Amino acid sequence: MYPNWILQRAYLTPNRIGLSFEGNHWTFEEIKKISVKRAEQLKSLGIDKGSRVAVLGENDSSLIFIMYGCMHLQCEMVLLNRKLTTNELAYQINDAQVSMVLVNDNDLSLLPEDVNYLRFSEIENSDCKPIEISREWPLQQTISIMYTSGTTGFPKGVRQTVENHQSSAVASVLNIGLSEKDVWLCAVPLFHISGFSILVRSLLYGNEVKLYRKFDHVQIAEDIVFGRVTNVSVVAVMLERILHILEERNQKASPSFKLILAGGGPIPKDYLIRAEQRGLKVLQTYGMTETSSQTATLPAEDALRKIGSAGKPLFFNQIKILGADGPYQEGEICIRGPHVTPGYIGRYEVKPSTEDGWLHTGDIGYVDNEGYLYVVDRRSDLIISGGENIYPAEVENVLMGHPAIKEAGVCGVEDATWGQVPVAFIVLKKDVSPDEIKEYCLQHLAKYKVPKEVYVVDALPRNASNKLLRRKLKELLS
Amino acid sequence: MYPNWILQRAYLTPNRIGLSFEGNHWTFEEIKKISVKRAEQLKSLGIDKGSRVAVLGENDSSLIFIMYGCMHLQCEMVLLNRKLTTNELAYQINDAQVSMVLVNDNDLSLLPEDVNYLRFSEIENSDCKPIEISREWPLQQTISIMYTSGTTGFPKGVRQTVENHQSSAVASVLNIGLSEKDVWLCAVPLFHISGFSILVRSLLYGNEVKLYRKFDHVQIAEDIVFGRVTNVSVVAVMLERILHILEERNQKASPSFKLILAGGGPIPKDYLIRAEQRGLKVLQTYGMTETSSQTATLPAEDALRKIGSAGKPLFFNQIKILGADGPYQEGEICIRGPHVTPGYIGRYEVKPSTEDGWLHTGDIGYVDNEGYLYVVDRRSDLIISGGENIYPAEVENVLMGHPAIKEAGVCGVEDATWGQVPVAFIVLKKDVSPDEIKEYCLQHLAKYKVPKEVYVVDALPRNASNKLLRRKLKELLS
Repeated sequence: MYPNWILQRAYLTPNRIGLSFEGNHWTFEEIKKISVKRAEQLKSLGIDKGSRVAVLGENDSSLIFIMYGCMHLQCEMVLLNRKLTTNELAYQINDAQVSMVLVNDNDLSLLPEDVNYLRFSEIENSDCKPIEISREWPLQQTISIMYTSGTTGFPKGVRQTVENHQSSAVASVLNIGLSEKDVWLCAVPLFHISGFSILVRSLLYGNEVKLYRKFDHVQIAEDIVFGRVTNVSVVAVMLERILHILEERNQKASPSFKLILAGGGPIPKDYLIRAEQRGLKVLQTYGMTETSSQTATLPAEDALRKIGSAGKPLFFNQIKILGADGPYQEGEICIRGPHVTPGYIGRYEVKPSTEDGWLHTGDIGYVDNEGYLYVVDRRSDLIISGGENIYPAEVENVLMGHPAIKEAGVCGVEDATWGQVPVAFIVLKKDVSPDEIKEYCLQHLAKYKVPKEVYVVDALPRNASNKLLRRKLKELLS
Repeated sequence: MYPNWILQRAYLTPNRIGLSFEGNHWTFEEIKKISVKRAEQLKSLGIDKGSRVAVLGENDSSLIFIMYGCMHLQCEMVLLNRKLTTNELAYQINDAQVSMVLVNDNDLSLLPEDVNYLRFSEIENSDCKPIEISREWPLQQTISIMYTSGTTGFPKGVRQTVENHQSSAVASVLNIGLSEKDVWLCAVPLFHISGFSILVRSLLYGNEVKLYRKFDHVQIAEDIVFGRVTNVSVVAVMLERILHILEERNQKASPSFKLILAGGGPIPKDYLIRAEQRGLKVLQTYGMTETSSQTATLPAEDALRKIGSAGKPLFFNQIKILGADGPYQEGEICIRGPHVTPGYIGRYEVKPSTEDGWLHTGDIGYVDNEGYLYVVDRRSDLIISGGENIYPAEVENVLMGHPAIKEAGVCGVEDATWGQVPVAFIVLKKDVSPDEIKEYCLQHLAKYKVPKEVYVVDALPRNASNKLLRRKLKELLS
């Protein structure tokens, strides 16, 4: 049994600032009081201890207090991605069988019909029902559930337990160090593990989260220059925009600034060189929903010496390359450690997440002679666009649902801004315009998943057993 | 399963300095290589994986490499206190049923007869037997066993597991922060948890241990002034001596110096004020062998505001005062958390170490209205002298063994240098001189346990049921 993070942190350092957002700030004692109140309000509105709820909302303080209220109630929180379409949300809500969706009033229009929901304003204005809040949490308790797509194209709900989050936060501090003056800027979504893990770290480390509603590169660049924050989590496209401002203004990071943690795919070498010139230490990391954030992280001092590497595992984690018996041999990356999910929920509940304790990621990689990991190919031809994961199979499934389409193949192509964007290749049954196809996709897929280009072709590249060869799709363009 | 700390640390930061001692230093890669070699040498000398061995030696690099060799072999190491008499060591070696005692050549004379032993020099010069070293350790694996006395006066062997040590080290970093430049000075014995926990922290944090063979207050003061170390563990008497040097030379701690971790009993207010004047941050801590070092620690900024307090628990730990239902109410201090021993070995193996997961310390204390712990009375009238624990019952047992003594009572009295020292009150059967009694004690007890004064009295203070009232002994002096 480990302590309830929120209560323990408020007990240990009640007067430290734990959160700031749009000019307001809250101490850990205040965070505790508000979150306990939310728990009592949720209870009075019928949310039971240990039940499963979904949460949907943009980054703001209300969202955090409601999530912490759920954590006091030891609820399993399904964190919904607000970039998804209503259809996609409906799938997750249905698959997770949640008893209630807690929704920011502004996001009500995103919800499918026939869903039980409570608006944040209802919760915040509700009466309280006194409850006994557990001072302890079992290690195996599920804190959060995040959906991620897989090889089949159907999203899987991934359990993230107390132990997963806690060991991840602790292993990270053994890597990057800690000072009580650290302030972690969060402009990545809280429904992603990149954002939620910042909250977990704040509770365990006792440091401040500076939360942004949206990514604001000008403001963030100023925070970095004027030393208002020490750590920032980004994806490549965000890093580039921050660099652009610093270059335009010929400014450098404050000496008190510590690091940029960059996830969601590789960082171009050019960005790394420019970052160094601006005094920005960039730590590239390899992680995924199934590992509650970082598995491996490349120290800033190795950033240019080991271009393209994701570094070494964090202290409690292990990595092996399946089938490789030496450095530089490629194989499937397998991961082991207390940060690896114990399993899925819903239709994939029966599918074990590990074999002999090893998570088989489907990603291909190798380690070099010094033990640094290189990720060569993301699993299932995964496309990473602006830090969001796009699974070709999921987009193809949607395309195949259109009456004019006979076959469909999707792959990623390089993009200067987003790293990659998806494009589609289709074989037609009857005539249809690419624009009509894009319009159709917009109704069924989050915007970032919609193919930027749709190419009509005569046939798709397939192997002898007729399996689609997605990596050969790009050759159709030349 | 968690990684073998030594292998993982060498993998992650091979080139960082992990240990320095008397002008030599070793990187983590070198530490790994030497310790793996020791494991192979121990194996070739008949030490089996998972067996229980005892280790006896002064603070030096040889001791560390042999201990790490044992850890690779996943041996349970009984860490013997070299201040004990041969009789006391014999008790522990026998109680623990160790298969072998690994002994520094210089300490051979301390060993009882009829004990299987290997001298460090034999091990270091032995051939190697290749072995498969486990890359992982189970959380419940016993790393070390340390003997501590209890209410009965018979020492108990306390198990300290991977989880105990690891959670303690991690909880400490969440309290005091971490930088890769940290260097922890160790002049406390490695056979005590205060010293051994510095090694564990070094492996987990990736920082350097600067090891001292003996406490050398002049040298240590210089390390602090010239910024050669950042952290030092001390007991009160050591702090005073360091302060004395700084005052004599009118020097202050280097700005890079971080903290003094002060355990083994309360620190006098006068020392705290003097430390502040010398720029030394002192963190007072409350811990014990059963909790693998710190349970609660008082932040330096509260040192003078909360005189006499041991602070608040570390993040993963909980404290409760048995029977108290509010602040300032005294009761037995109970401790819970992953750092609490799962149990004892030997004759106390059957005695559970916890009730419902709570360790009942026997110490009396209270928490104030802000949740700070105050330890009022150490368990069983425990006497803490220069950081060493002395149990009156153990000393009384020895005294009662003398043919001239009818009754004996032992208590601690204040001492300017050691905090406390033991004194004895005896009722005689026949005439004997106090000096003869002291001489007799020296044969049976470690020197620090021998009563500094022996008073002959007519009767001992006892309650109605004839139980000795140790706290009333001191009144016999007035």
